[in-house]
Amino acid sequence: MIANMTEDQLLVLVIKYIREAKRHSLQELLDELHPYDVAIIYRSLPVKHHHKFLTFLNPDQIADLIEELETEYQVEILQKLGVEESSKVMDLMENDELADLLNELSVERIQEFLDVMKKEDSIKIRSLMSYPAETAGGLMTNEFIWIHANQTVRQAVDKLKEYASFSENIYYLYVINEAKKLVGVVSYRDLLIADLNEVIEDIMFTRTVAVKVTDDQEQVANIIERYDFIAVPVVDDEDTLLGIITVDDALDVVIREANEDIEKLSASGNIDFSTKAWTASIRRLPWLILLLLIGLVSGSIMNYFEATLAQVVALVFFMPMIAGMTGNTGTQSLAVVVRGISQNTIDKKVVTNLILREFRVSLIIGVTCGSLITLIAFLWIGDPSLGMVVGVSLFCTLIIGTLAGTIIPLILHRFGVDPAVASGPLITTLNDIFSLLIYFGIATAFLTNLT
Amino acid sequence: MIANMTEDQLLVLVIKYIREAKRHSLQELLDELHPYDVAIIYRSLPVKHHHKFLTFLNPDQIADLIEELETEYQVEILQKLGVEESSKVMDLMENDELADLLNELSVERIQEFLDVMKKEDSIKIRSLMSYPAETAGGLMTNEFIWIHANQTVRQAVDKLKEYASFSENIYYLYVINEAKKLVGVVSYRDLLIADLNEVIEDIMFTRTVAVKVTDDQEQVANIIERYDFIAVPVVDDEDTLLGIITVDDALDVVIREANEDIEKLSASGNIDFSTKAWTASIRRLPWLILLLLIGLVSGSIMNYFEATLAQVVALVFFMPMIAGMTGNTGTQSLAVVVRGISQNTIDKKVVTNLILREFRVSLIIGVTCGSLITLIAFLWIGDPSLGMVVGVSLFCTLIIGTLAGTIIPLILHRFGVDPAVASGPLITTLNDIFSLLIYFGIATAFLTNLT
Repeated sequence: MIANMTEDQLLVLVIKYIREAKRHSLQELLDELHPYDVAIIYRSLPVKHHHKFLTFLNPDQIADLIEELETEYQVEILQKLGVEESSKVMDLMENDELADLLNELSVERIQEFLDVMKKEDSIKIRSLMSYPAETAGGLMTNEFIWIHANQTVRQAVDKLKEYASFSENIYYLYVINEAKKLVGVVSYRDLLIADLNEVIEDIMFTRTVAVKVTDDQEQVANIIERYDFIAVPVVDDEDTLLGIITVDDALDVVIREANEDIEKLSASGNIDFSTKAWTASIRRLPWLILLLLIGLVSGSIMNYFEATLAQVVALVFFMPMIAGMTGNTGTQSLAVVVRGISQNTIDKKVVTNLILREFRVSLIIGVTCGSLITLIAFLWIGDPSLGMVVGVSLFCTLIIGTLAGTIIPLILHRFGVDPAVASGPLITTLNDIFSLLIYFGIATAFLTNLT
Repeated sequence: MIANMTEDQLLVLVIKYIREAKRHSLQELLDELHPYDVAIIYRSLPVKHHHKFLTFLNPDQIADLIEELETEYQVEILQKLGVEESSKVMDLMENDELADLLNELSVERIQEFLDVMKKEDSIKIRSLMSYPAETAGGLMTNEFIWIHANQTVRQAVDKLKEYASFSENIYYLYVINEAKKLVGVVSYRDLLIADLNEVIEDIMFTRTVAVKVTDDQEQVANIIERYDFIAVPVVDDEDTLLGIITVDDALDVVIREANEDIEKLSASGNIDFSTKAWTASIRRLPWLILLLLIGLVSGSIMNYFEATLAQVVALVFFMPMIAGMTGNTGTQSLAVVVRGISQNTIDKKVVTNLILREFRVSLIIGVTCGSLITLIAFLWIGDPSLGMVVGVSLFCTLIIGTLAGTIIPLILHRFGVDPAVASGPLITTLNDIFSLLIYFGIATAFLTNLT
């Protein structure tokens, strides 16, 4: 019956159960749902029902629910539950999710929760919280199942049953030696088709790919993507197995990184369809005001070249086109660099090749567009020297614009500057200034010779 | 020994085996490697060794290798192998990968290959090739394992052993009823910890989430991401199970879509770090030339307003700033819309809310930036009426720019136009034109009253 109900029908049923205090029916219903669906119900549920809803759930269900919710809901639930009840729930949460949640709370709050948790769990959590968020360590869970190489398939299956609560989301068993070093990996399917008396060593895969705990999260996601892994083990410098990172976390990283890249390109800040107008404005305004001020620099450049402008008014007609084209080519290069930085390892050779490639590109497009505009300008205004000025200027500004769009983000990346600084609008605005300087500079130099 | 070798050491060893014709040693070596690593070796191997390398592999290894390589290498391998040998390899490839590969070949070539393949395989391939590439049907593989609800765990395990070659990359068993409709799902781990005599029906999960064969690939990826699935079943309108889509395909979709979004924003075309300068130029030039021509429209607008310009030369100083700011706010809105379209279901309500939100945002940033520039212009030029003209113009152009960046991509999306058309540079260039029209329009109207 439940299998075919819509979200709205489910919500109505849940409210009915809450009103009629049918705790057991509610639990049964929720057991049939994915945590993602339970989270949708929780968000849609009128706030007045939240507390009662939670009291009807067992700690296991609350743990699953919390893992699917946004921070504000998570904190709300912890507050409604109180420290003692919360700690029970926390014991059941995946350790990486829990560490992320705790990182959102104040130091005193964290201490309060850790104090009432099981000793062994709180030690694990503390160790997870000690890794930087954007590294393999910050992403991994230490809920995985390991086994010794000399144990049998039967022992492995027994261990799986013992750790049934978290063997659910894991698809490999990690094999370690006496020194706790990772020596191999066995999939559940290998165990299923093996004989129960076989020794793990004989069926395991030995060329394991692992990531270092200090590796950047993008690197980790790239490895999972390349090898089509479901999970990748995380080790320290001595190859000791510390945890695993699962493909769903890699998927989240990829989405987050792509969104960040797009924010970089547009300086739009972290805004989605559900962001309130006021919040969205506050996030965009600092950039816009900065760009406004930088934009005025363009104005003062023109002020400086007023004499040249007065001499040949037609110069001004080509100004928006030249500034715009420099911005466009810069944006194109920037997009290639920003995306590439996320997906490639950046070393000296890569950087050199990239800059040379973009330089060649700028020559090709510079010659093409420069010749085209020389012709157009000549036909339009009828003055060959103006045509030359516009053409040569466009050639030069396209080269400068392309290189600015390539080199500025690379330099920022090199110095670890928050990449949002290398935004598309910033590059465009800088290129505006470069292009005006070049255009009026060349025009002034030519015109004094020619007119 | 192999476990700790670097890529270069492996390559040297492979070349040694090829030179010394040690076929068996090579096969043993490759069996210890991931297909991704074998592909790296193949790409690094001098071309003269390619043929011999292939003859040393068994069809299974070649199938794994092909799946990891780019189209040009895939076609090369098929040519080196010849039709008969190729068809053996194709029988062993994952069907979704094979369908993608065949789609790259000419119709006659496809026919040739399908003719020599096993009848049942060629029927499956033909049916996979019939689905559009960007839908669930185009993404799915029909290599999955199903079982009837009334069978036992023992029968399920036997079936897994029988289909060992592709049970490797699949982590669930799909449960169907007599009418071949999907009724549940069982994970390998459920099978492992269950008793061999239990009936599947009793241990299966019944609220299965499935996607329709016609669903868009982005929707599929979103579902896999939200539910943290390893695979999602694909059904037709009658709930008949047709195939499955695995998380690694979802990950590829997400990466591809993010790259497409960035190409949209930058009009940079499909270019990465390894693209040749010439190819990159060819892909960028059409856009740049189009934008160049559109950019000239800005020039002719200024030509039209020449009288106004001549009257108040200071007007021109604020022109780059106004055009730039209109472009910036348009890019910000565009980024939000382009990214949002990938990650949300777009309906009337969503669109209305989004447009209203962006309109409110434009009012807030318009008032803020407009007031600021009125003040700056007054202080700089000392003319309050010019300050007003600039401020009011910026206010108006920010509203128009924001709405253009929001509405144009939504309209294009609505009419299914190739979204690359709604690129950032295009919006910026259009906004250039809008902003000049508004600025000089307002200036002309005011100045005739004021001076």
